[in-house]
Amino acid sequence: MAGEVRSCFAMTEPAVASSDATNIESRIHAHPQGGYVLEGRKWWTSGACDPRCKVAIFMGKTDPSAPAHRQQSMILVPMDTPGVTVVRPVTVFGYDDAPHGHAEVHFEGVRVPAEAVLLGEGRGFEIAQGRLGPGRLHHCMRAVGMAERAMEMTRERMATRKAFGSVLAGHGALLQQLAEMRIQVEGARLAVLNAAHQLDLHGNKVARPAIAIAKVVAPRAAQAVLDAAIQVHGGGGVSGDYVLAAFFAGARVLRLADGPDEVHLRDIGRMEMKGKARL
Amino acid sequence: MAGEVRSCFAMTEPAVASSDATNIESRIHAHPQGGYVLEGRKWWTSGACDPRCKVAIFMGKTDPSAPAHRQQSMILVPMDTPGVTVVRPVTVFGYDDAPHGHAEVHFEGVRVPAEAVLLGEGRGFEIAQGRLGPGRLHHCMRAVGMAERAMEMTRERMATRKAFGSVLAGHGALLQQLAEMRIQVEGARLAVLNAAHQLDLHGNKVARPAIAIAKVVAPRAAQAVLDAAIQVHGGGGVSGDYVLAAFFAGARVLRLADGPDEVHLRDIGRMEMKGKARL
Amino acid sequence: MAGEVRSCFAMTEPAVASSDATNIESRIHAHPQGGYVLEGRKWWTSGACDPRCKVAIFMGKTDPSAPAHRQQSMILVPMDTPGVTVVRPVTVFGYDDAPHGHAEVHFEGVRVPAEAVLLGEGRGFEIAQGRLGPGRLHHCMRAVGMAERAMEMTRERMATRKAFGSVLAGHGALLQQLAEMRIQVEGARLAVLNAAHQLDLHGNKVARPAIAIAKVVAPRAAQAVLDAAIQVHGGGGVSGDYVLAAFFAGARVLRLADGPDEVHLRDIGRMEMKGKARL
Amino acid sequence: MAGEVRSCFAMTEPAVASSDATNIESRIHAHPQGGYVLEGRKWWTSGACDPRCKVAIFMGKTDPSAPAHRQQSMILVPMDTPGVTVVRPVTVFGYDDAPHGHAEVHFEGVRVPAEAVLLGEGRGFEIAQGRLGPGRLHHCMRAVGMAERAMEMTRERMATRKAFGSVLAGHGALLQQLAEMRIQVEGARLAVLNAAHQLDLHGNKVARPAIAIAKVVAPRAAQAVLDAAIQVHGGGGVSGDYVLAAFFAGARVLRLADGPDEVHLRDIGRMEMKGKARL
Ligand SMILES: Cc1cc2nc3c(=O)[nH]c(=O)nc-3n(C[C@H](O)[C@H](O)[C@H](O)COP(=O)(O)OP(=O)(O)OC[C@H]3O[C@@H](n4cnc5c(N)ncnc54)[C@H](O)[C@@H]3O)c2cc1C
Ligand SMILES: Cc1cc2nc3c(=O)[nH]c(=O)nc-3n(C[C@H](O)[C@H](O)[C@H](O)COP(=O)(O)OP(=O)(O)OC[C@H]3O[C@@H](n4cnc5c(N)ncnc54)[C@H](O)[C@@H]3O)c2cc1C
Ligand SMILES: Cc1cc2nc3c(=O)[nH]c(=O)nc-3n(C[C@H](O)[C@H](O)[C@H](O)COP(=O)(O)OP(=O)(O)OC[C@H]3O[C@@H](n4cnc5c(N)ncnc54)[C@H](O)[C@@H]3O)c2cc1C
Ligand SMILES: Cc1cc2nc3c(=O)[nH]c(=O)nc-3n(C[C@H](O)[C@H](O)[C@H](O)COP(=O)(O)OP(=O)(O)OC[C@H]3O[C@@H](n4cnc5c(N)ncnc54)[C@H](O)[C@@H]3O)c2cc1C
Repeated sequence: MAGEVRSCFAMTEPAVASSDATNIESRIHAHPQGGYVLEGRKWWTSGACDPRCKVAIFMGKTDPSAPAHRQQSMILVPMDTPGVTVVRPVTVFGYDDAPHGHAEVHFEGVRVPAEAVLLGEGRGFEIAQGRLGPGRLHHCMRAVGMAERAMEMTRERMATRKAFGSVLAGHGALLQQLAEMRIQVEGARLAVLNAAHQLDLHGNKVARPAIAIAKVVAPRAAQAVLDAAIQVHGGGGVSGDYVLAAFFAGARVLRLADGPDEVHLRDIGRMEMKGKARL
Repeated sequence: MAGEVRSCFAMTEPAVASSDATNIESRIHAHPQGGYVLEGRKWWTSGACDPRCKVAIFMGKTDPSAPAHRQQSMILVPMDTPGVTVVRPVTVFGYDDAPHGHAEVHFEGVRVPAEAVLLGEGRGFEIAQGRLGPGRLHHCMRAVGMAERAMEMTRERMATRKAFGSVLAGHGALLQQLAEMRIQVEGARLAVLNAAHQLDLHGNKVARPAIAIAKVVAPRAAQAVLDAAIQVHGGGGVSGDYVLAAFFAGARVLRLADGPDEVHLRDIGRMEMKGKARL
Repeated sequence: MAGEVRSCFAMTEPAVASSDATNIESRIHAHPQGGYVLEGRKWWTSGACDPRCKVAIFMGKTDPSAPAHRQQSMILVPMDTPGVTVVRPVTVFGYDDAPHGHAEVHFEGVRVPAEAVLLGEGRGFEIAQGRLGPGRLHHCMRAVGMAERAMEMTRERMATRKAFGSVLAGHGALLQQLAEMRIQVEGARLAVLNAAHQLDLHGNKVARPAIAIAKVVAPRAAQAVLDAAIQVHGGGGVSGDYVLAAFFAGARVLRLADGPDEVHLRDIGRMEMKGKARL
Repeated sequence: MAGEVRSCFAMTEPAVASSDATNIESRIHAHPQGGYVLEGRKWWTSGACDPRCKVAIFMGKTDPSAPAHRQQSMILVPMDTPGVTVVRPVTVFGYDDAPHGHAEVHFEGVRVPAEAVLLGEGRGFEIAQGRLGPGRLHHCMRAVGMAERAMEMTRERMATRKAFGSVLAGHGALLQQLAEMRIQVEGARLAVLNAAHQLDLHGNKVARPAIAIAKVVAPRAAQAVLDAAIQVHGGGGVSGDYVLAAFFAGARVLRLADGPDEVHLRDIGRMEMKGKARL
């Protein structure tokens, strides 16, 4: 595979708080003649704008009367199926992230065959949970990478730009801030390495607190470091002439995607209280 | 005047740290046949992309051998003078802020008459200082306004969006965060009111510490409040469907424009030490 | 009155979370021969160690079967009544705050006459609420005063102490921090002035959000400023040779006394959501 | 050795900024009849109050005309040498840390033999630097230990204390804060492990940035976690009935002892800029 065919993941819906996956309202109805009919409006379907994107994984309810975590299923939908409409790209700050893009996608009377269901009906929530550990760490690594790149640019800038009588590195306040930036990057790096190490050694379940911590720490550190790097770059920092503003948007998004910070913090808190209190 | 004619202010240059106005390198040469010739490359000339913008205030050195604060002059330049080129709009977090825009503008062999100099040669720095007090407070008020609007949207969202078993307002952590947001907005509002009050009563000089404080506090509060409001809005928060991401970019910029935070903090620190230590 | 007779206020109990006044478990029983009998263990009864303290205001339940906010009453008890025992001073960090002190006080079979009840049975909670507005602002003013004193000491220190090649004020990072300290003190000062102003003009009810904000902002600012001042004073800062460590303890306590921060933040959040959501 | 004989380290002086070791002003004069005479006023000589403390390591100038880093020497002084006076214990947030204690110690005309000099004249600064790596990590480990203990107490408290309708763990804001505390402790733990690992593997020099980072991160995290734990414990938190207030004082001190934060941040910043700018 040479990366010519791509897929997208269509879970999030504008109408409901999608950080709580049990809220997803799209429907996957059984069709009287076999297979399923999909109905729903999704957004933030990353990659759906790319012409190479040929298939979507759609999440929706097969059985709204089942227990909360068994109502959802995931199902494969070719993008050219009638009833699938890529409505528009949704922007991130002012970026449209083309060609990749994050699309609003409507599914209206979309028919797919029975075999398209992943793992079986009612397992959508479970799949969503399972894929998140490694996926989250992947995002975190990108966050560390962006922060490290910002460090490099900041050092370069501080060594050469002159203001108020010296290069920026000669201003004690900026030098101290550079140290704070390094501390943040190192904290993020160690949190991610630790989570990856635990994932390798002990698997998803044991690594869960470490992953949740990394997922909070790394995007937060990246956002803080990028914000500081932007400041050191002055007007240039917010412009398109440096990569920092776009990276900032990317890091900011990671505090929402794959679980907003608050959801991870709640998990960490609950794991901390485990065996002590019923929450 | 019905707002049909607009001006722009061309001080900042990509090549030098322009937060230190003494760095500005553009030149205003005397022309052998009278008047001046301007040479320089500017960017972040806000409004220069707008077709209604007819005149620029250009800052440059008339006398590089004068003491640092007497080298610069400001001079009026009609935008249609030969040699003035609006090269491109510079973006802010992906936004081009059209039609207004922030332009890169080149001035090459631009001739202007002698009368175009504002106040007289060598007074550019002085003018730059003088106009900043009221201008800064104006920016701060916009920051407070954006933050207040974000509060309104956040309240609305928290009252209606449901996740993990209740409306968002029912989650204690979010309610506490809403309180922190209110505290920030009030802090910004009081800082700006106090500075405006002192400016009215006692003028620019006495009000200087209060203005510098407001200039740090208000954009910072606005950025923090907008960041939190974005988070509460989930994916929607970073998108173009709500005004929050664009406001965030606007607030972020205020921590740089009209003096980066660090420059104001340095001023506040020096005023604090006045009479105690020579800095 | 020359300050020779003092009173103390005995509400808080070690056994229950006393930030929620409805939790108070001490009992005020009717005595068959008239008057009341008090039973309860209190602590943090400030001033009870002082020999000039002659009377306590005791809070306890007169009617545990009443609605939550009508169960408590306040009652006056002379300190020399049989059954009142000042057990020990409770320390704050390592300070005993003598002669004033914060006492653990036991009340065992303490008889007081019927007239000793303040305002009437069942009004304890109401009195507790009512006295807090002005009392809280008084604490906040002390917080601002302590912070301002710390500024003065810090300026002095920064002007005279030399390290790494210059007086401390010559280190840009410290000068910037001094500015941050000033920003905090000004924020606290304005929050308190604003609350006092609203209290004067519009009374307790309208001023409630402003008072709650001041009660969070001022102790927090004082703690941050004192912490920074301590740091600038090096080892001296934590010692008894400067007033900073004792002030720090005093400011830290204000984040708990008269309502912990969290309780005020919850109130501010709820007021913010008023009319929008039922909480 | 059963710990019956103890030593103390007398470097810091009240009169000069001792975080910059080159400032130390005590003198070590050669005596005409051989050996040395010590003159100086020290404070924060930890352990000097303990009767088991039999010997001090004294730092002072042997040669004020040498280059800055070669002026100082370290020398051993039995505590019962004539001229050595333990003046008083210096307190830490009201604690005297008895029996151990932190003493002010005066050295007046104290004679010691020539062999008492450690390593040789002029090597005091060098010894001070060398001993700090492992010593610093030891302090950091204590910081992590204190923080971990505070977590345990906080969990216990949150599981049992009831306020405003539920156990504290049921309040989302506190649960989220507990997560933030865990994040801090993990960050500190990983920073310390990483520094220790690098110290083991590559020695003092390579490990220097990691040690400096750990020395900033761990005490700071411990202070933040202890502050939060105190808050959750209400009035009890600041009292002597729990260990938290004393631990807080201990953690706060670590941000000063063995190099104030600012000095480490400056080092980290300079290492970051190494090869890029001359600072
Ligand atoms: C650039 C980008 C790319 C994305 N890509 C994809 C994709 O490819 N496919 C896809 O399906 N989705 C994608 N998403 C969507 C993303 O996963 C969701 O935005 C995210 O899950 C949050 O859902 P929401 O936007 O509905 O926010 P909501 O669920 O409405 O949450 C909003 C906020 O409520 C608060 N909150 C929620 N629960 C709690 C709680 N228990 N306690 C306290 N506070 C709480 C948080 O502050 C949260 O941020 C993408 C998003 C972005 C921005
Ligand atoms: C949206 C936008 C609109 C603008 N509009 C205009 C306009 O209309 N006209 C115009 O002329 N300009 C405009 N500007 C430019 C703006 O005023 C400058 O960007 C600003 O003055 C900073 O200058 P600089 O970008 O050259 O940054 P630099 O001067 O290079 O400063 C970069 C950074 O160095 C650090 N620094 C500088 N000095 C110190 C110090 N003493 N101590 C510690 N740190 C320090 C700070 O972190 C600072 O942010 C605009 C900028 C933006 C982003
Ligand atoms: C120096 C000092 C002097 C004092 N003087 C007096 C005095 O003179 N008379 C007197 O009666 N009392 C006095 N007090 C007691 C003081 O008023 C109480 O300590 C305070 O009300 C908190 O009660 P508590 O200690 O029982 O803490 P708790 O009620 O157990 O609260 C502990 C913590 O729980 C958390 N919490 C509680 N509710 C919530 C919520 N809804 N959401 C989130 N978190 C929450 C907070 O973190 C809070 O700090 C004094 C205290 C001190 C330290
Ligand atoms: C409990 C305790 C135990 C101790 N035990 C011992 C002991 O056993 N033996 C011993 O010799 N000493 C001991 N010390 C002393 C300790 O090492 C010193 O307090 C510390 O080195 C700071 O020195 P100083 O107090 O003179 O502060 P100063 O050197 O005066 O520094 C004060 C502040 O100045 C600022 N500062 C300094 N340099 C810079 C810079 N370059 N940039 C920005 N800011 C800067 C920092 O904020 C710093 O905190 C102990 C201290 C305490 C509190």
